[in-house]
Amino acid sequence: MDGLLIVISGFSGSGKGTILNRLLKDYDEYVFSVSMTTRAPREKEVNGKDYFFVTREEFEKAIKEDGFVEYAEYCGNYYGTPKAYVEEQLKNGKSVILDIEVQGAMQIKEKFPDALMVFVAPPSIDVLLQRLRARGTETEEVIQKRILRAKEEVERIDKYEYLVINDNLDKAVSELHQMAEAAKFSTKRLSKFMAKIKTELNNI
Amino acid sequence: MDGLLIVISGFSGSGKGTILNRLLKDYDEYVFSVSMTTRAPREKEVNGKDYFFVTREEFEKAIKEDGFVEYAEYCGNYYGTPKAYVEEQLKNGKSVILDIEVQGAMQIKEKFPDALMVFVAPPSIDVLLQRLRARGTETEEVIQKRILRAKEEVERIDKYEYLVINDNLDKAVSELHQMAEAAKFSTKRLSKFMAKIKTELNNI
Repeated sequence: MDGLLIVISGFSGSGKGTILNRLLKDYDEYVFSVSMTTRAPREKEVNGKDYFFVTREEFEKAIKEDGFVEYAEYCGNYYGTPKAYVEEQLKNGKSVILDIEVQGAMQIKEKFPDALMVFVAPPSIDVLLQRLRARGTETEEVIQKRILRAKEEVERIDKYEYLVINDNLDKAVSELHQMAEAAKFSTKRLSKFMAKIKTELNNI
Repeated sequence: MDGLLIVISGFSGSGKGTILNRLLKDYDEYVFSVSMTTRAPREKEVNGKDYFFVTREEFEKAIKEDGFVEYAEYCGNYYGTPKAYVEEQLKNGKSVILDIEVQGAMQIKEKFPDALMVFVAPPSIDVLLQRLRARGTETEEVIQKRILRAKEEVERIDKYEYLVINDNLDKAVSELHQMAEAAKFSTKRLSKFMAKIKTELNNI
């Protein structure tokens, strides 16, 4: 059986990166799809692990070559999901996690109606602001941009199937895993089995 | 927080009764809503536990008094879910399980859009026929009626969110529990939280 495609979005500062790292460490079945971006690496970010960091020219070349399952421009930078890796891992039965923003997520939802759509939210906006400022890597101007973006994103949360409210890391990781386990049994992902049962019944 | 309303349907012979009994035994958070019916009790069935067995007159009186969240006629008998118990348990934070057939389930889905909708299917129709005949409590005529009914029901499985494919009791019980756990975090059931986050964001 093909793996599950899992789309994770969340406000900047929601802590989704930490949740995903733990999920990947705790369970073998998940793989992370590394996005390509033109934004500058943050301190501690590793090329090829956190992102593939490329120039605008390189990114636009990949667009022309139809190399993305989705891509979007966000806060002045390109972000995209390279296609080949995702398709290969799904065929191998792995659950592939895409950590992407709302605009790209909506593209995935349209192309892959079976994808599990999860949004990570902080328990409150106060907590979100504290986390953004505690990072200490971003200017107040960038933080204001991210808040503005969050105001846009919040309007589309209802397009996601599930919310992870990130107030406890262990709990958030286990909830996310439960959503993925349950998703394997959703009727929209079991259409082949339902067709089989239908045929068998009508052949009695 | 109010409890989760869980609707379970499945072909006669799918084994859903056994799954539900185990779920209720293993986890404290679930309660079973006992249906009212005009059909005759099967051997071993207990009045007030498996069903409230009543006459057609008693059932029709309850209909007139608006005493059901749903009711339907199925194979010549009435089946209905008494309203008072369900509402009380949900308020107490319990997850209330309704074991009802497709017609009643569709009424619940309309009245309670937040309800978790699960269909229990056998791994194959051969297995279903074996189970129906092994019961030994029903005439071949009744079995044929149930198959006819299954042919109608199969057309509406896609109205359910999840399928439990019952080829292993332990697995089926744990899958059902996972679906219920995940359901608590579905966006459609967290609309209050989302409204709170939205207000907080727009007040910055």
